[in-house]
Amino acid sequence: MSTVAALAAPSATEPLIRTTVERRELGPHDVLIEIKYAGICHSDIHAVRGDWGPVPYPLTPGHEIAGIVAAVGSEVTTRAVGDRVGVGCLVNSCRECEQCLAGQEQDCLNGNVGTYASVDRDGTVTQGGYSTHVVVNDAFTLNIPDGIGLDVAAPLLCAGITTYAPLRRWGAGPGKKVAVVGLGGLGHMAVKLAHAMGAEVTVLSQSLKKQEDGLRLGADHYYATSDENTFTDLRKSFDLVLNTVSAKISLDDYLRLVKPHGAMVCVGAPAEPLEVGVFSLISGARTLAGSNIGGIRETQEMLDFCAEHGIGADIELITADQVNEAYERVLASDVRYRFVIDVATI
Amino acid sequence: MSTVAALAAPSATEPLIRTTVERRELGPHDVLIEIKYAGICHSDIHAVRGDWGPVPYPLTPGHEIAGIVAAVGSEVTTRAVGDRVGVGCLVNSCRECEQCLAGQEQDCLNGNVGTYASVDRDGTVTQGGYSTHVVVNDAFTLNIPDGIGLDVAAPLLCAGITTYAPLRRWGAGPGKKVAVVGLGGLGHMAVKLAHAMGAEVTVLSQSLKKQEDGLRLGADHYYATSDENTFTDLRKSFDLVLNTVSAKISLDDYLRLVKPHGAMVCVGAPAEPLEVGVFSLISGARTLAGSNIGGIRETQEMLDFCAEHGIGADIELITADQVNEAYERVLASDVRYRFVIDVATI
Repeated sequence: MSTVAALAAPSATEPLIRTTVERRELGPHDVLIEIKYAGICHSDIHAVRGDWGPVPYPLTPGHEIAGIVAAVGSEVTTRAVGDRVGVGCLVNSCRECEQCLAGQEQDCLNGNVGTYASVDRDGTVTQGGYSTHVVVNDAFTLNIPDGIGLDVAAPLLCAGITTYAPLRRWGAGPGKKVAVVGLGGLGHMAVKLAHAMGAEVTVLSQSLKKQEDGLRLGADHYYATSDENTFTDLRKSFDLVLNTVSAKISLDDYLRLVKPHGAMVCVGAPAEPLEVGVFSLISGARTLAGSNIGGIRETQEMLDFCAEHGIGADIELITADQVNEAYERVLASDVRYRFVIDVATI
Repeated sequence: MSTVAALAAPSATEPLIRTTVERRELGPHDVLIEIKYAGICHSDIHAVRGDWGPVPYPLTPGHEIAGIVAAVGSEVTTRAVGDRVGVGCLVNSCRECEQCLAGQEQDCLNGNVGTYASVDRDGTVTQGGYSTHVVVNDAFTLNIPDGIGLDVAAPLLCAGITTYAPLRRWGAGPGKKVAVVGLGGLGHMAVKLAHAMGAEVTVLSQSLKKQEDGLRLGADHYYATSDENTFTDLRKSFDLVLNTVSAKISLDDYLRLVKPHGAMVCVGAPAEPLEVGVFSLISGARTLAGSNIGGIRETQEMLDFCAEHGIGADIELITADQVNEAYERVLASDVRYRFVIDVATI
């Protein structure tokens, strides 16, 4: 057991403070990672504030982790000291069920172990990446290729895979038209990735405020959803509509933008249920789907794809002192496009 | 122009009566079909009663048509007098748009022409299959293989393709678990087809009243949805849930029965919108989709599949005099499993 510096929320209502967390002894299959950068995901805020149910306190969030291997367990063969590695939303799963065997550890039928606020298979509570070090089983570490800076790689571990997986599954590529709803942390990654996959990319954002950014990130077109003409002009236009916002929207309005046999996929979700007219789905045999991060194998594939295409997140690097202010700015959608904590300042 | 015997609704509120309809002169690409059997689809009732919007009266419904070619136009090469043919829900489309070229004429971007109550490209209003003869462009006729009786083939033209297309698209086959919600006209075809495709089939019906039928039709398991244990016992059980009922259901309850990365597909739809929790889709990256008949090529594939596997609909053959009574029985779900009109009695 070792004690390492960290930021943690003492309760659902207090700001994050500097503290320490315990990391387990290095087991034979474990990797000790010296964390360099940790991204701030909107989910971190929901989690520490108890929006998604009770969590144990003090809680150190963070599941967008990039760092350097500092030590490896006796049986580790895939990682070596000095390797550039990442950790995403998962640090364990049963590895035996149908889903794990299919490489979908995030859907482990026996319950995956989240990077923080989860009970690991040894009974300990996991603590996340706003911390100088973490111990993770080697099978849940990712290789960060040399082509990507560790700072801009960190957000790929959640925002990257969350958008990469549905783009791949639903066929984004040459000749396909993809709409990205919302240009925030997830949306800006979706634009970069869909563009790199060869799709024709349209951003659908509330206003035209970020239009210049959207086009720079790789979008071919940019429309404001506050303009009602958008929903008539773009009827049946897209093979795929990727919804990255968690605001309450009219699913029927967006489904009408989908071509027959196309799909709308949600990676953002409002807490309350949405209404859908089943005729919106039957007409044109349209699909409404969800997507939730991705498995380890696909996360590695995403990192390799990003390295090949020179893709990292657009980030605002902050110090540990700025984390509570950053949380408020995330809640106000005032970030372009991801806050990343310089862990050396913790 | 020729005048042929038919059944028609004089208005939205009157019973169907014996009358005549006009059929156009045989064009060079037209086929004159002597109709032998016409299935009664629930949609026929919705249409003639104006449930789905205004329709022209008098209206002859019927889009599950099986008969014999009586004459062919000068340019027709694919059909000959004496051929056993079928006509489904479509009799024309633009044949030039992206959807038509992809074999999805039902989603023609310039508007398909329905078998009845549609305006054809020549400006005439189409009249359906409750009639002794119909003239249809050869490209919209289907070959009914010798292996299937014309009476049990008729319902395949709508109920068959409506269930075949989503079963194929969403991967029903060996090693896959398929649930069919509702054992009516569509549901009984879904059970037969999914079983023939090699899937493990479960019927989810309101009660166990039709259990014996379900197992005979090819289901491996049968559960009552009125038993709340069904929804806990079968959690994450199915690769595909095919919903054939148009009752208002809880989408979230049924989505919980879908395995991660699986799909629920609706071919029945209530008029009012349904609620869906987006987390039900995000969790396990589940899909909620619709499906609407199928294109001409796939309808032929379905007929060939049915012939190969000895599949026809389970029907109750009726005379023209019984059609209004049959409508009431369809509305009361009192049919096992499809009424078919013996057109010789019109």
